[in-house]
Amino acid sequence: MPDIEIHCNEEKGQKFIKSVERKHFLFSFVISYTETSEIPGITVAGADPNFIKFTPPADAEFLHYGFCKSIDAIPMTPDGKPTPALLTKTALQSASIPQVVINAGSKIPPKLPYFETSLPFGKNISVEPGLDKSSVVHAVDYGKIVGRTLASCTDCLVIGESIPGGTTTALAVMKGLGIDARVSSSMPTNPQSLKNQVVEKALKRSNSKEPYDVIANTGDPMIPFVAGMLSTASEITNVILAGGTQMAAVLALAKSTGYDKDRVAIGTTSYIIDDSSANFLETVKSISDIPVLSINPKLADSKFDGLRAYSEGFVKEGAGAGGTMIASLLKIGMSSKKLLDLIDDEYSRITTSQ
Amino acid sequence: MPDIEIHCNEEKGQKFIKSVERKHFLFSFVISYTETSEIPGITVAGADPNFIKFTPPADAEFLHYGFCKSIDAIPMTPDGKPTPALLTKTALQSASIPQVVINAGSKIPPKLPYFETSLPFGKNISVEPGLDKSSVVHAVDYGKIVGRTLASCTDCLVIGESIPGGTTTALAVMKGLGIDARVSSSMPTNPQSLKNQVVEKALKRSNSKEPYDVIANTGDPMIPFVAGMLSTASEITNVILAGGTQMAAVLALAKSTGYDKDRVAIGTTSYIIDDSSANFLETVKSISDIPVLSINPKLADSKFDGLRAYSEGFVKEGAGAGGTMIASLLKIGMSSKKLLDLIDDEYSRITTSQ
Repeated sequence: MPDIEIHCNEEKGQKFIKSVERKHFLFSFVISYTETSEIPGITVAGADPNFIKFTPPADAEFLHYGFCKSIDAIPMTPDGKPTPALLTKTALQSASIPQVVINAGSKIPPKLPYFETSLPFGKNISVEPGLDKSSVVHAVDYGKIVGRTLASCTDCLVIGESIPGGTTTALAVMKGLGIDARVSSSMPTNPQSLKNQVVEKALKRSNSKEPYDVIANTGDPMIPFVAGMLSTASEITNVILAGGTQMAAVLALAKSTGYDKDRVAIGTTSYIIDDSSANFLETVKSISDIPVLSINPKLADSKFDGLRAYSEGFVKEGAGAGGTMIASLLKIGMSSKKLLDLIDDEYSRITTSQ
Repeated sequence: MPDIEIHCNEEKGQKFIKSVERKHFLFSFVISYTETSEIPGITVAGADPNFIKFTPPADAEFLHYGFCKSIDAIPMTPDGKPTPALLTKTALQSASIPQVVINAGSKIPPKLPYFETSLPFGKNISVEPGLDKSSVVHAVDYGKIVGRTLASCTDCLVIGESIPGGTTTALAVMKGLGIDARVSSSMPTNPQSLKNQVVEKALKRSNSKEPYDVIANTGDPMIPFVAGMLSTASEITNVILAGGTQMAAVLALAKSTGYDKDRVAIGTTSYIIDDSSANFLETVKSISDIPVLSINPKLADSKFDGLRAYSEGFVKEGAGAGGTMIASLLKIGMSSKKLLDLIDDEYSRITTSQ
């Protein structure tokens, strides 16, 4: 697959690709929430703070319907930079990959059928623990059930997420677990110092290095839920963790919850790999010996400013965009050039139909 | 398959069996509620009226965990006749068939991850319409989404239900749609006259023969939801409607919502076929040309009174028992004798562990 790059463990990456090429894929989209996202300046997902909580359900609705129901428009910055769910939708549709939405602590439920997990949303970790310890246990347990069910129905389970502010909780979790990480951001000027301040405040509250304590104090509901999914799903089938920093935090917790290292790859965009403010590949290597797959969707060649902005450092990844684009190429043998044409078509559709 | 009988369209039944033998199955368990179940004497599911609403979530929990969380015990009559979910659980487990629970209007949500559909529970059709018309549309629409997703992940989607009082709403729906039906019951002395009184009251309220009007006036949320599932799922894969009377009502509505008649079979127990107070096969024939598959689980040979009662006319079917037992035989080529041993083991486990 010339359009997919393999990083970290090259040999395992080759093997992984061989075992899923032309096979059946299933995309699970985990939507969640942390009040950490309400700290001014921490996320670009929803410029208006009252709007942030609608981003995860709106992304889910857009993937299903091609339009949103919880809000009037498709999530997009005022100057036309769209949600990465646009890339995800195009990828899933082009390769006929089925999808399920999982509500793992979203503040607003999506207007479509979804897996309910009864998880509360996460609190602002700069002022209080993100989760009760009992919610961490619940999240892992329910994640294990959902992971087992979905994995039993596919050759490759792709897991993506939508949780505004999630890179900050992911950073806090990794630091709390003793991992030297820096994180990518949905903004071109990564608000590192703001994120680090939040993380420091959270870490000061507790000295415990016990993983569930760390998640409860500094995490969000998505991380333990997806770690649970990974644990059971990787025993049964292949798993692509679709994302950047946040999936590294999932992997860090998965050391405790357990998983089959020979059946997992991270799938992400080249924008995450190339982000010089983060150290993504080093972070992953320090956690696990699994391969990282990346795709360059060549959005620099798009007809539209809003999409070219991705290649200039905006958005970069999210809503499982990288992993689902990789899945679509692997499933039907499409080129990334062809995928870009479809992405441009989709951008054109949503900007003219509104 | 010597242990599976084919009724109605024999040729289509043979073809159906050939196309799913040794293939991948997925069980979807639709739990729902109608206040019609609160009419004294209409159902055996939950002898105590305050308990009836817990039966669907308790069945779902039992299938997943092997015990219930919403109630303290496994649904069973005081003299030891267990919920048919016991047969379902044994079948799914013996053949490693994955399952998902769908909440389509249950009064109580189950304590496990489940598909949420935001449907209200049904009202008592003897005193008021069962559903708003908008809920009927919503149920069909959401059923179509869930059906499409699940069907994309399997070679055969088995759909079962748990809705106490559901045979009465099913009877009302069929009569309202002009079908001459009598129904089976979970009780050996079928309370036909009581059911017919309820149905007459409901039908008197409206003269409309428009199918969605009929469902709104006389139906429950399960029927339109499963009709929606059947509509999209049968376009993609094989479908077993696991149940008796209630699945006949689904088929009756599916004439309007549409489905692929070459990809559907009803799967049920021989106790439904042999029920002389009902006319199940004639009812199905009058609706559609699809095959009916039945299994005789030979519970008359069980070691336990509570299970032998099934062969004496108690319970007969429910929680997708017939369809999942058929699926387990088709998937792994097991005999019904072997399945009975496993059912006896399971009965022994739950009655000694409580």
